[in-house]
Amino acid sequence: MKTPEEYKESLKKMRPNIYKFGELITDVTTHPATRRCVEGHAKIYEAAHNPEYRDIAVTASHLTGEEISRYLSLIKSADEMIANSRLKRTVFNLTGTCTGGRCVGWTAINAMWAVAHDMDKELGTNYGGRLRDWLTKAQAEDIALAGAMTDPKGNRTLPPSKQDDPDMYLHVVEENNDGIVVRGAKVMIAGVAASNEIFVLPGMRHAESDKDCAVSFVIPRDIKGLTVIEATHPSDRRELEEKGFDIPTETGITQAYLFFEDVFVPRERVFMCKEYRYSLDAVWNFIMPYRSAIGGCVAGQGDVMIGAATLAARANGLSENVFRDTLTRMAINNETTFGMGVAAAAIGKRHASGVWLCNPLLSNVNKVHVASLPYETKVMTQDICGGIGETGCMPSSADLYHEEYGKLVQKYLKAAASGEARARIARLIEWLTVGAGIPGCLHGGGSPGGAKLIIWREIDLNRFVSLAKNLAGLKEEIPSPKK
Amino acid sequence: MKTPEEYKESLKKMRPNIYKFGELITDVTTHPATRRCVEGHAKIYEAAHNPEYRDIAVTASHLTGEEISRYLSLIKSADEMIANSRLKRTVFNLTGTCTGGRCVGWTAINAMWAVAHDMDKELGTNYGGRLRDWLTKAQAEDIALAGAMTDPKGNRTLPPSKQDDPDMYLHVVEENNDGIVVRGAKVMIAGVAASNEIFVLPGMRHAESDKDCAVSFVIPRDIKGLTVIEATHPSDRRELEEKGFDIPTETGITQAYLFFEDVFVPRERVFMCKEYRYSLDAVWNFIMPYRSAIGGCVAGQGDVMIGAATLAARANGLSENVFRDTLTRMAINNETTFGMGVAAAAIGKRHASGVWLCNPLLSNVNKVHVASLPYETKVMTQDICGGIGETGCMPSSADLYHEEYGKLVQKYLKAAASGEARARIARLIEWLTVGAGIPGCLHGGGSPGGAKLIIWREIDLNRFVSLAKNLAGLKEEIPSPKK
Amino acid sequence: MKTPEEYKESLKKMRPNIYKFGELITDVTTHPATRRCVEGHAKIYEAAHNPEYRDIAVTASHLTGEEISRYLSLIKSADEMIANSRLKRTVFNLTGTCTGGRCVGWTAINAMWAVAHDMDKELGTNYGGRLRDWLTKAQAEDIALAGAMTDPKGNRTLPPSKQDDPDMYLHVVEENNDGIVVRGAKVMIAGVAASNEIFVLPGMRHAESDKDCAVSFVIPRDIKGLTVIEATHPSDRRELEEKGFDIPTETGITQAYLFFEDVFVPRERVFMCKEYRYSLDAVWNFIMPYRSAIGGCVAGQGDVMIGAATLAARANGLSENVFRDTLTRMAINNETTFGMGVAAAAIGKRHASGVWLCNPLLSNVNKVHVASLPYETKVMTQDICGGIGETGCMPSSADLYHEEYGKLVQKYLKAAASGEARARIARLIEWLTVGAGIPGCLHGGGSPGGAKLIIWREIDLNRFVSLAKNLAGLKEEIPSPKK
Amino acid sequence: MKTPEEYKESLKKMRPNIYKFGELITDVTTHPATRRCVEGHAKIYEAAHNPEYRDIAVTASHLTGEEISRYLSLIKSADEMIANSRLKRTVFNLTGTCTGGRCVGWTAINAMWAVAHDMDKELGTNYGGRLRDWLTKAQAEDIALAGAMTDPKGNRTLPPSKQDDPDMYLHVVEENNDGIVVRGAKVMIAGVAASNEIFVLPGMRHAESDKDCAVSFVIPRDIKGLTVIEATHPSDRRELEEKGFDIPTETGITQAYLFFEDVFVPRERVFMCKEYRYSLDAVWNFIMPYRSAIGGCVAGQGDVMIGAATLAARANGLSENVFRDTLTRMAINNETTFGMGVAAAAIGKRHASGVWLCNPLLSNVNKVHVASLPYETKVMTQDICGGIGETGCMPSSADLYHEEYGKLVQKYLKAAASGEARARIARLIEWLTVGAGIPGCLHGGGSPGGAKLIIWREIDLNRFVSLAKNLAGLKEEIPSPKK
Repeated sequence: MKTPEEYKESLKKMRPNIYKFGELITDVTTHPATRRCVEGHAKIYEAAHNPEYRDIAVTASHLTGEEISRYLSLIKSADEMIANSRLKRTVFNLTGTCTGGRCVGWTAINAMWAVAHDMDKELGTNYGGRLRDWLTKAQAEDIALAGAMTDPKGNRTLPPSKQDDPDMYLHVVEENNDGIVVRGAKVMIAGVAASNEIFVLPGMRHAESDKDCAVSFVIPRDIKGLTVIEATHPSDRRELEEKGFDIPTETGITQAYLFFEDVFVPRERVFMCKEYRYSLDAVWNFIMPYRSAIGGCVAGQGDVMIGAATLAARANGLSENVFRDTLTRMAINNETTFGMGVAAAAIGKRHASGVWLCNPLLSNVNKVHVASLPYETKVMTQDICGGIGETGCMPSSADLYHEEYGKLVQKYLKAAASGEARARIARLIEWLTVGAGIPGCLHGGGSPGGAKLIIWREIDLNRFVSLAKNLAGLKEEIPSPKK
Repeated sequence: MKTPEEYKESLKKMRPNIYKFGELITDVTTHPATRRCVEGHAKIYEAAHNPEYRDIAVTASHLTGEEISRYLSLIKSADEMIANSRLKRTVFNLTGTCTGGRCVGWTAINAMWAVAHDMDKELGTNYGGRLRDWLTKAQAEDIALAGAMTDPKGNRTLPPSKQDDPDMYLHVVEENNDGIVVRGAKVMIAGVAASNEIFVLPGMRHAESDKDCAVSFVIPRDIKGLTVIEATHPSDRRELEEKGFDIPTETGITQAYLFFEDVFVPRERVFMCKEYRYSLDAVWNFIMPYRSAIGGCVAGQGDVMIGAATLAARANGLSENVFRDTLTRMAINNETTFGMGVAAAAIGKRHASGVWLCNPLLSNVNKVHVASLPYETKVMTQDICGGIGETGCMPSSADLYHEEYGKLVQKYLKAAASGEARARIARLIEWLTVGAGIPGCLHGGGSPGGAKLIIWREIDLNRFVSLAKNLAGLKEEIPSPKK
Repeated sequence: MKTPEEYKESLKKMRPNIYKFGELITDVTTHPATRRCVEGHAKIYEAAHNPEYRDIAVTASHLTGEEISRYLSLIKSADEMIANSRLKRTVFNLTGTCTGGRCVGWTAINAMWAVAHDMDKELGTNYGGRLRDWLTKAQAEDIALAGAMTDPKGNRTLPPSKQDDPDMYLHVVEENNDGIVVRGAKVMIAGVAASNEIFVLPGMRHAESDKDCAVSFVIPRDIKGLTVIEATHPSDRRELEEKGFDIPTETGITQAYLFFEDVFVPRERVFMCKEYRYSLDAVWNFIMPYRSAIGGCVAGQGDVMIGAATLAARANGLSENVFRDTLTRMAINNETTFGMGVAAAAIGKRHASGVWLCNPLLSNVNKVHVASLPYETKVMTQDICGGIGETGCMPSSADLYHEEYGKLVQKYLKAAASGEARARIARLIEWLTVGAGIPGCLHGGGSPGGAKLIIWREIDLNRFVSLAKNLAGLKEEIPSPKK
Repeated sequence: MKTPEEYKESLKKMRPNIYKFGELITDVTTHPATRRCVEGHAKIYEAAHNPEYRDIAVTASHLTGEEISRYLSLIKSADEMIANSRLKRTVFNLTGTCTGGRCVGWTAINAMWAVAHDMDKELGTNYGGRLRDWLTKAQAEDIALAGAMTDPKGNRTLPPSKQDDPDMYLHVVEENNDGIVVRGAKVMIAGVAASNEIFVLPGMRHAESDKDCAVSFVIPRDIKGLTVIEATHPSDRRELEEKGFDIPTETGITQAYLFFEDVFVPRERVFMCKEYRYSLDAVWNFIMPYRSAIGGCVAGQGDVMIGAATLAARANGLSENVFRDTLTRMAINNETTFGMGVAAAAIGKRHASGVWLCNPLLSNVNKVHVASLPYETKVMTQDICGGIGETGCMPSSADLYHEEYGKLVQKYLKAAASGEARARIARLIEWLTVGAGIPGCLHGGGSPGGAKLIIWREIDLNRFVSLAKNLAGLKEEIPSPKK
């Protein structure tokens, strides 16, 4: 398994095709716009070599029996799925934020493993074999694998085939014996800058008229024809600064827009091509474990917020006991999203391909919680910290260290800890709550509105009606009125 | 395994020692104050003979390998603990309310099984053997077993030994070769009227000075010296009526005050006697599975509320789609308490005695949810139903069937269903939300305040502080200020 | 102004036409099913003679200048409307529950005063004069006036004229020089048993085809052809008991179904007859002040809950400081519904008739809060009290005073207060939270769903869009898409 | 009254004493770090000359009868206090954010007006006269007046006199016939860069030993000895860019640290000097109107969020009706904070000095709502907008306009509106929810924890206990237990 250094080395070798602020990034491991993202992902490589985290970060390949990163493993049981939640919580503990250049890819492997199995069985294709071959190699090379699902979507009320511009959904434009050519985009893709390869899969169900969009494959990040533009978030100009701690961490996350201008993908890396009836399965198999384990992510960040809030209280001269009720409520939020993910895993079931499928109802309930509880936790963190953490209400590092008046800044920021320590803590809280550390709680893994729709479809309303009728001794038929 | 009829027969044979409204109840299976409670518990016996529920209601004894009620089984794995949550949800589905005359006893067996094991190992006692012998017989006889934990407590700020009246905590007043004599009370005990035996265990941790209160045993419900007074809840005078549907169900639950006036318990039924250091373990081992599985209870009632609300909407002429968002939120609440219980089971661990111990943090987080989410669900049920379900705002059955003006009542209650059907649905909703069907969400299994205290103690605050410090690159020591 | 005794005397004289549990109530002031409702309303008469409450309970008639009950006054300013909120809060403080036999009638007077003014002006009718004459007399006699608005409604998806049964909405069946004849029903009408007269007004907007339902009038409660059936709520059988304190209060509220079987109303008591275009105004003018002031009602009950919870804590031996956070949150809920009502009054405006109109947006926002905050307050009250207040988990008065074992009940209920005192407090909390004291927070004054619809219509979405566009410097037209 | 241009001219003339990022700002009206703050405040000057806003922005001086900015007026009635809420809502509508360089100063004038009156009456001082003279001039000059209250506070558990460093609280170091000399700091002061003068007042109650901190005065912003360091918030490096719309607005707000190094204040500008018994009054009189009217601020920003979310939905091709429930809940939040402020004004009372005092209970309840409801509104805004608004998940303006690939960025951002329009809307939402537009909802005007403490002290617990006892017919004395 790769060391962090070997991992970074592998990234350095790649063709530069990532841009931000109008400039080409030649080395993602050192450029200020991407290096924190790489450092965050490097912590995963580090963890694999650290006895404290080894158990959770490393597992045995079901293909070779060799030790591999859990992020490249097949999830075959409730326990392995629970390990997914734990791993994500742990990695958020270590990075304070998302390492989306690994978890999306991991989930994509598992989702497509089951779909490939079904297609092969029902259609006589050989996607499963291709996927196995690629995965064996990926595990051996210990690659960092991002995943790409979300299409630009254009007019949200129209299907792909009805869009003014056909490129609003990534689609196959050519297919031959050697492979396929794809055009379009995938947007808001996390951790691309820190990844070696990208696993692409459909973003929604497809009708026959949209079958060109039913496509899944894996590509090197620096493949010909692919251009990557990194998104900008509010505080990322701070990341460009060389000194100070206004960005308080060495870790970070990026989101990218991927433009595919007639990219050729060789056939052995294609796992779905126009089998539109299976697009929904791919999406479904993806979102269940994703919405289950994302509860571990936000819990892991929530743990850091409890720690940061406690530090802030102490630095202000106050015992954490003053905030016992608030800190307890933060913990309740954390354990709720973590726990619901564990539960969705625990009562899941095994797919014929060997992949573990999480319970759809609990996974989606968790997505709804993930879209609300972390926001409460953030507000509570700011509440405990005071105004300086709420809106970053203090001078910059440049001012704190200023030759002339820096001493004054430090003097007046001092409380039960030094002015610098208080400022660092407050910047961390700012970063976690209104800064670069915010993960996509609302829309990462899909919107809460979409999750609610699935919940509505998954509950067995008529069974509940029968229970109520039986209890009330009601014989009369009371149908739902026709429109 | 007993049929419902055999079960009721077993209750009929017992000595009458239960009072309500100042009167002695001679037959709990027919007396209007207790028969609904018995009928509710009888549904469990029925389920054991029903192929649809058999898997969840019946399991194999680890002692004899025979089929037994799951309510008398030892819980030895995460899956068996998850089955506990499922069973409770199922039984609430069937009864609409609590069957506390079984689940508390079940949890008590498991809690004391582990404690007996530890006492035997550390103190050389033989409580484990006694418990095994008794349980073997209890399983064979398929008894209904209530559990009793809560002491009257007197002045809440004083320990047992400092109370003005020593009887405020049940305690041993005599101990000899044949057994022990106990005095005091246990209060708010559910389902006593429907039980054959009662399992008693400590209600709190004890200091040496309180060692007489460190006592656990099991007794027949009609043992000499025990007087049972049933509590009254708002709508239970309705239960006394012979006609109509103002009490809409055939099921129900009772809570009793148990007065022990020098009750003699033979030694083979005593599982703890003055080993005060183990009282806390008994409590701890009890509350974890209880607070985990209680999420299944309230989810099971929530399922019925979704059904009842849907019926109410339809009876008003409205499609349930009108209330999709509200019904979805009700489902989210249900799945959250159920799911958190599942999660607490899934990441539990095995005790040396073989008993499965739920995760303390998640169990207690679940208790906090159980103390709030069902109330939201109730309000949403009433919201969908309209005013007649909210406060029972319609005439009684006596008026609905009145010779003279009953037709008018029915005429004006009619909507998309008959007036009687609408009234029955509304009474069911009233029963579920402000009537006899309400389980003790807040204080059943302990208060949310107590659960929060455990959460506070279980979270590893200093680990979280370290995570935050590492992320912020903070070296300065920032201790919690001394008082 | 009447004394409480004179008020009761006036009720005694009326023709018995109220039924409950299948029986005719011959004297509402002494019958156990209605006397608590009468006693509650009598407190208003008492307050008028009590210097402490006189300022809020009494005001000057704008017609005669004489002192009158505020409940029969015209509300002509923000301050008088705020006094409405204060009065309701005060009366809930004194009764613990609703006195709906006065506030609905009061609001109806004011609503119809404005509508009568507009009809007279626009149609040349003389409804305003009739209303003034009747009101002058009503003030002089100091009557208790109920109000009736809600029709049975039958199939909720159909208008009155399309119902299978035309009686689903109260309507005019005959009109002549002397007056009108009406048929149908009004349902869920509060405090009828405690009232002398009933003010009837439309319950919804009407199209021309429904014009027979556009009718408003006032009648003596015992008018020929009117039959009143009282609704039953969960705990009201307790009210029939002569002894004990299972019903802890001397006050209460009733809701009735009113059946109009061809009731003749003389023309001088008719204030609208088929002017269907004004039905919506009547409803609108009614719900604004009603939804504003109902916040005072629930705040007034919330005050009592804070008091009861504090008592419960103290009786358990605990200082209220232990529950400071919870009690503070209860107070926040109370002040929010009270305050929003005050605000809706403060930024209202005067109608040409002299009547003060509350702000529609804030009134309806308050209705939404009234439909949720009191439920939180109830749960918090139960939380502080413990299990005995949550589900009435203690023996009845009959058991507490039982010759044989009553002493045991009292002994074991004792804590820092006597067993009887603790029981009384717990019964009060039970009464307030799951018993007869619950007011109709959800549907009283209309449902929260209806209130949200009005809010949606009242907000000026396009103005907000312009603000956002201006700030973002956005010139592009972005219309709402057509369906 | 000044025009926006005259206002800016007045700022240009001032001595440069403001620093940010280590640099001195020579012209606040053009420097990118401060110009948006000045532009925001300039909108107030603009509104005074705009017929649409004149009524709310301008009022008559009670001193001279001349037209003045409402921000320099004395608030003497409920209506004028309600106008305060309206004005703040309006200004947030126009600027999208805080204009703290005016509202804090305004509130300070009013708070000290009452305190000066009391001191003069009780101590024979002439603070009132000084204040009147200064205010007359300030109104005539139409100055922008900031306010400064918060001291650095050092160790939060110690009073000023016990701090290691006496400068942790601004204090008087010298006093003579000409005036006073002060040293220390005020921190987190809003809008200093946009103000002409700064009104300083005590930040907490004082004991006699802390009397040197009991000081109030007003100074020109560029007074000798005062150094101002602007705080940095996450996205403010974007403000430094000259092109693009990553900062989407022309408005903004700054917060500053003010260091007083022996600043001399002439006596005619001193309004309190060591009268420590009056410090609490100053604070109290300040926070009541402030916490009342801040509800208008957040409502005004909430209006913009409703508009922005509606725009985002439309730009995505969706009707706002899809989000009706969410938008309605946003409106409920806005009207709640606005309404509670109105209510606190409506039931306030007049101080002997003529100043209107808001109701303390409702003001503080509002502060609690302000510290939570806007966060819900922000999350709902992001929910409707989708991922691009949540975390700014799209390329920068530099990329959108990039010569080479900018067309691709625009192509793939296009939906029912152009790519640029969607980006602008999303940036506005980002700015409002995780960017520079966030006002200090939690700690602005004090923390919610402090507000809850006042609520706890303001509620009349024993009156509520009496109500409950009366209702329950309880005679027994049940005192709060002694510690």
